[in-house]
Amino acid sequence: MSAFGFRLLGEDGQARLGQVQTAHGAIQTPAFMPVGTVGTVKAMMPESVASTGAEIILGNTYHLMLRPGADRVERFGGLHRFMNWPGPILTDSGGFQVMSLAKLRTMTEEGVTFQSHLDGSSHTLTPERSMEIQRRLDSDITMSFDECTAFPASEEVAAASMRLSMRWAKRSRAAFVERTGYGIFGIVQGSVYADLRVESVEALTAIGFDGYAVGGLAVGEGQDEMFRILSMTTPLLPAERPRYLMGVGKPADIVGGVLRGIDMFDCVMPTRSGRTGQAFTRRGTVNIRNARHQDDPRPLDEACGCPACRNYSRAYLHHLARAEEVLGLMLMTWHNLHYYQDLMRDLRGAIAEGRLARYAADFAALQALGDVAAL
Amino acid sequence: MSAFGFRLLGEDGQARLGQVQTAHGAIQTPAFMPVGTVGTVKAMMPESVASTGAEIILGNTYHLMLRPGADRVERFGGLHRFMNWPGPILTDSGGFQVMSLAKLRTMTEEGVTFQSHLDGSSHTLTPERSMEIQRRLDSDITMSFDECTAFPASEEVAAASMRLSMRWAKRSRAAFVERTGYGIFGIVQGSVYADLRVESVEALTAIGFDGYAVGGLAVGEGQDEMFRILSMTTPLLPAERPRYLMGVGKPADIVGGVLRGIDMFDCVMPTRSGRTGQAFTRRGTVNIRNARHQDDPRPLDEACGCPACRNYSRAYLHHLARAEEVLGLMLMTWHNLHYYQDLMRDLRGAIAEGRLARYAADFAALQALGDVAAL
Repeated sequence: MSAFGFRLLGEDGQARLGQVQTAHGAIQTPAFMPVGTVGTVKAMMPESVASTGAEIILGNTYHLMLRPGADRVERFGGLHRFMNWPGPILTDSGGFQVMSLAKLRTMTEEGVTFQSHLDGSSHTLTPERSMEIQRRLDSDITMSFDECTAFPASEEVAAASMRLSMRWAKRSRAAFVERTGYGIFGIVQGSVYADLRVESVEALTAIGFDGYAVGGLAVGEGQDEMFRILSMTTPLLPAERPRYLMGVGKPADIVGGVLRGIDMFDCVMPTRSGRTGQAFTRRGTVNIRNARHQDDPRPLDEACGCPACRNYSRAYLHHLARAEEVLGLMLMTWHNLHYYQDLMRDLRGAIAEGRLARYAADFAALQALGDVAAL
Repeated sequence: MSAFGFRLLGEDGQARLGQVQTAHGAIQTPAFMPVGTVGTVKAMMPESVASTGAEIILGNTYHLMLRPGADRVERFGGLHRFMNWPGPILTDSGGFQVMSLAKLRTMTEEGVTFQSHLDGSSHTLTPERSMEIQRRLDSDITMSFDECTAFPASEEVAAASMRLSMRWAKRSRAAFVERTGYGIFGIVQGSVYADLRVESVEALTAIGFDGYAVGGLAVGEGQDEMFRILSMTTPLLPAERPRYLMGVGKPADIVGGVLRGIDMFDCVMPTRSGRTGQAFTRRGTVNIRNARHQDDPRPLDEACGCPACRNYSRAYLHHLARAEEVLGLMLMTWHNLHYYQDLMRDLRGAIAEGRLARYAADFAALQALGDVAAL
């Protein structure tokens, strides 16, 4: 098994073409990671996820520690075997979801004690415990335990939160068990404050990680602010390590992130939106529940090769959504994941050929054109 | 295109091996038809349905006429194209579901007027209207419009209901538009009364249909009564036409039906039970939600080749069911449909080799052994 690592294969402005090597295989970057919260990418067979072009998925430590439990997953040979996904898996640290989902949280320097949103049972997450859980899950890419700073936050609050995360990052790095092909990423915090972001990058690079994530964005600050922080943060990060923008985002956010040097993304948007009837297409979003689709023989996206677009009309997908049929969730999710992977493939191709700026301009123009205009 | 027809290929006692030829392909019998109520076999891609071995599915006229509407399905090239199922489709007449689902029904000699359970809109089904809808859906096998007699019913009530159904059968036959490869089945009624069943068979065979269904069973009379009625009814039916037992049933009901000369079955049981966490296996049923499965590394059924059994533990399926994940519905449904098709294939093999009685005895013994004993 080869060591965990990142190869930079090309550049186009700030954007990068690369490859991340893990214990369970390689990932072409820029990459989008579908979210498989509790051990399943919702409404998808894992073979279908792979067929979209996805090479890595994300699992949620918070959800998995509560149900089915990290010990159980370990006894079943790790998350890959348990859920039948043989490829790479990245797990988050649990920090974000403790803040957004758990009840009765108590945070100290040591970590966070909280009650499960499922049954009220009490649990504790610390950097050391998060590392242990992610190891038991057999995660290829472990995320260091951090606090995702709430938004908005004063500079004082953001600084205190970021510095706590940096102390936790050091403890995470120390507790991470080195294994060939496995890596750990640090997470840059600092809210919208440039000086705090700089301080966070310096703290993390001093510790030294296999990759660096930008956290605490896409939490309400808006795309302009997000891009501003990204534009000043990514140039500070070591070029020889992968960069991951957590929880992002819409297609336009991803294009903007790639333009600013991001290599990896994850977001629930394609899966969650699919389940509510929203499709992402080359001409923007389509709400398939809208009555205007009920007699439309066209596919969701003429240029898409996914099963939903190859074999079904909008009228049929509209019917499934209105009838609340499971197949509707399946096909809409499949399409969205396929679209996202097509986008990443196109972005990689554009970087490889040095035409990313042109690609991004064409992308924006087509999205702005809108779906209705195509009627 | 070859004409609609039935070839009797072998017999073993009362049981028959055969083939039904339709406009959209052939069906090996005895056959089980998965139910695709509103234009989808719930939680399954049509390719996956076909991969289980299913050669024909059932669509519900009542559901489809209300949503998306028979006219719309016709404009999209019929139900096969609309739902991407290229194989044969049988549609029921709508009669059964008008009785079980619709509101404010008014029945006359002419037909039934009712309010939709979806939006309260008013509709009328008559033999002629049911034939028109099924033709618009492009159903390979049209069912004549009947009243499914309530259970229990006095002999007087059952007789009146059956005779109305026979008059409607005659009108259905007259309204059915002959097309090469398309057929219409009559439905035997008469509740649990042998003399009424005889009268019904005589009325239907006098009209002449491409196949004969036994209706009004599996409505609460119990397996013994159902088998008693079947044992006296099927010998009266023309040997050269397929026989269809409507809405049946559990695996043991199907084995008993085949032993009594039935060629075709349909039931929501494998799909509906799958969605509630109940699996059918060679050792009886398994409720995957039960806590005893949470650490069980075995598949649902060691002898099953479906994706749920090949790639996943009971522990994982238990986890999906508890977490109410869509993939749980998908895998459990897939397994159950695969199991049902395996059962039909085994029954066909046993008939072909003249060992059905032995097969049925072994089947019952293994089911009685139970799943717990296998632990």
